[in-house]
Amino acid sequence: MSDTTEPTDDQTATTGQNDPDDLAVAHRLADAARSAILPWFRAGTLVADNKATQGFDPVTEADRASEVAMRALLAELRPDDGVWGEEMGQTEGTSGRIWVLDPIDGTRGFLSGTPTWGVLIALARAGAVPEPILGMVDQPYIGERFFGGIDVPPEVHGPLGRAALSTRPTARLEDAILFTTFPEVGTKAEGQAFRRVADRVRLVRYGMDCYAYALLAAGQIDLVIEAGLYAYDVLGPMGVIQAAGGIVTDWQGGPAGNGGQVVAAANVELHRAALELLQDRTSH
Amino acid sequence: MSDTTEPTDDQTATTGQNDPDDLAVAHRLADAARSAILPWFRAGTLVADNKATQGFDPVTEADRASEVAMRALLAELRPDDGVWGEEMGQTEGTSGRIWVLDPIDGTRGFLSGTPTWGVLIALARAGAVPEPILGMVDQPYIGERFFGGIDVPPEVHGPLGRAALSTRPTARLEDAILFTTFPEVGTKAEGQAFRRVADRVRLVRYGMDCYAYALLAAGQIDLVIEAGLYAYDVLGPMGVIQAAGGIVTDWQGGPAGNGGQVVAAANVELHRAALELLQDRTSH
Repeated sequence: MSDTTEPTDDQTATTGQNDPDDLAVAHRLADAARSAILPWFRAGTLVADNKATQGFDPVTEADRASEVAMRALLAELRPDDGVWGEEMGQTEGTSGRIWVLDPIDGTRGFLSGTPTWGVLIALARAGAVPEPILGMVDQPYIGERFFGGIDVPPEVHGPLGRAALSTRPTARLEDAILFTTFPEVGTKAEGQAFRRVADRVRLVRYGMDCYAYALLAAGQIDLVIEAGLYAYDVLGPMGVIQAAGGIVTDWQGGPAGNGGQVVAAANVELHRAALELLQDRTSH
Repeated sequence: MSDTTEPTDDQTATTGQNDPDDLAVAHRLADAARSAILPWFRAGTLVADNKATQGFDPVTEADRASEVAMRALLAELRPDDGVWGEEMGQTEGTSGRIWVLDPIDGTRGFLSGTPTWGVLIALARAGAVPEPILGMVDQPYIGERFFGGIDVPPEVHGPLGRAALSTRPTARLEDAILFTTFPEVGTKAEGQAFRRVADRVRLVRYGMDCYAYALLAAGQIDLVIEAGLYAYDVLGPMGVIQAAGGIVTDWQGGPAGNGGQVVAAANVELHRAALELLQDRTSH
């Protein structure tokens, strides 16, 4: 971005909204995370080796390098904004805005070499429940980046070029594709609630980590249901999905910005149908 | 390859082994499959749209286009070899060799937009149980290709360049990462056998389709256990994994070239440990 288009800190603090330069900042964060992470991906993740070298863990190394790189950029480019990262906790800001970072979401996928982990970046309005202004899901190995937000048209940039993102209109659970990462989902009760939905849909798939949320934003799947999430797991995907026309709430239909039990749906009809089964209203 | 290095048909038929040009043929097949498939990937897979256009199904279209493209090349380049494709059945050859093709392995992953499906190519010795001479697993969207065989050093060509493949020495189930595609695995008994292994390992992950076998060859994971496979599901991955130092058999330790119940292991120790639990020898 040119200097002439850069807003003053006052403008940013006043609007509390996305301005064009925030997207450029998010791209720079994701670029920095990619460079920090990729040297560690598929680089000697032998369990035996880890033990032999006193706890060397490439996932932890990559996770930290990614967050350090993003925090350094934010300190330079957005000194008034808060930062909340998975690895290094919260840094207070004065702008009412907070960058929420998961330097590697899906560390078990990363450890296994799958292309399903990602870097999650959100710019959010601070508050009791943070609300995403801008969200980004980046998959460094594929070289694929999904993003969108308030006033930021949702797009994917990837191996096949650039495309707009839009969730799809699948209206019935019977036609829906549902993803979650682990079959057990969470607690026993959470697993049972998940399976009430899973038993009704056309197809259930597992193991995609944050990539599942990107596929929902891209109109490829219809539902993602997970439990036990943190704010940094959900705010980045939430920003992208909402910009693409989808809905992300907790299992009670309330705001999902603090994580916990999360349901992401392609549209209101599917969201309503999933919530009913998650809450088991039919059996009471 | 230059014309001067191309063997005569007689040489090929006599050795029944891999010669350098077979690898070039396999690369050309995978290139053709990529070109045929990618226009269909993430291109309007709306369920509602499918019905509206009388059964239009992008997965089926891509599957067929991929196999047609590969068969056309084989008819030209290897007219004496047999061809066995998932979509179009068996074409007899006279050379004692057969190209075994799965034009898209993981159609449900493809349908969902995940980067876990692949094109599987094997050159095998024909027989009651085909044995792979050369195997290839290609992921067109990532642009990543795993291959190896008898006299073909195993390699991956991907977003980060080229690297040799080698399975890893994890010796104990307690340190192993196990993958399968569906949590139910197969029949109820097959699911129970799988869970005897799953309960012992460090980490179980799902949903990777054929990509799991590639990760095993790359030394990222230790075990893949599946059931209900066909020859075209297993021969390509088997060629790569064997070249990388791994072992692929059925659950009884016999040849896996006809599919069925398949266990792929990074090394002999893990393979033995997994077979014992799959067969439940301990409880008899």
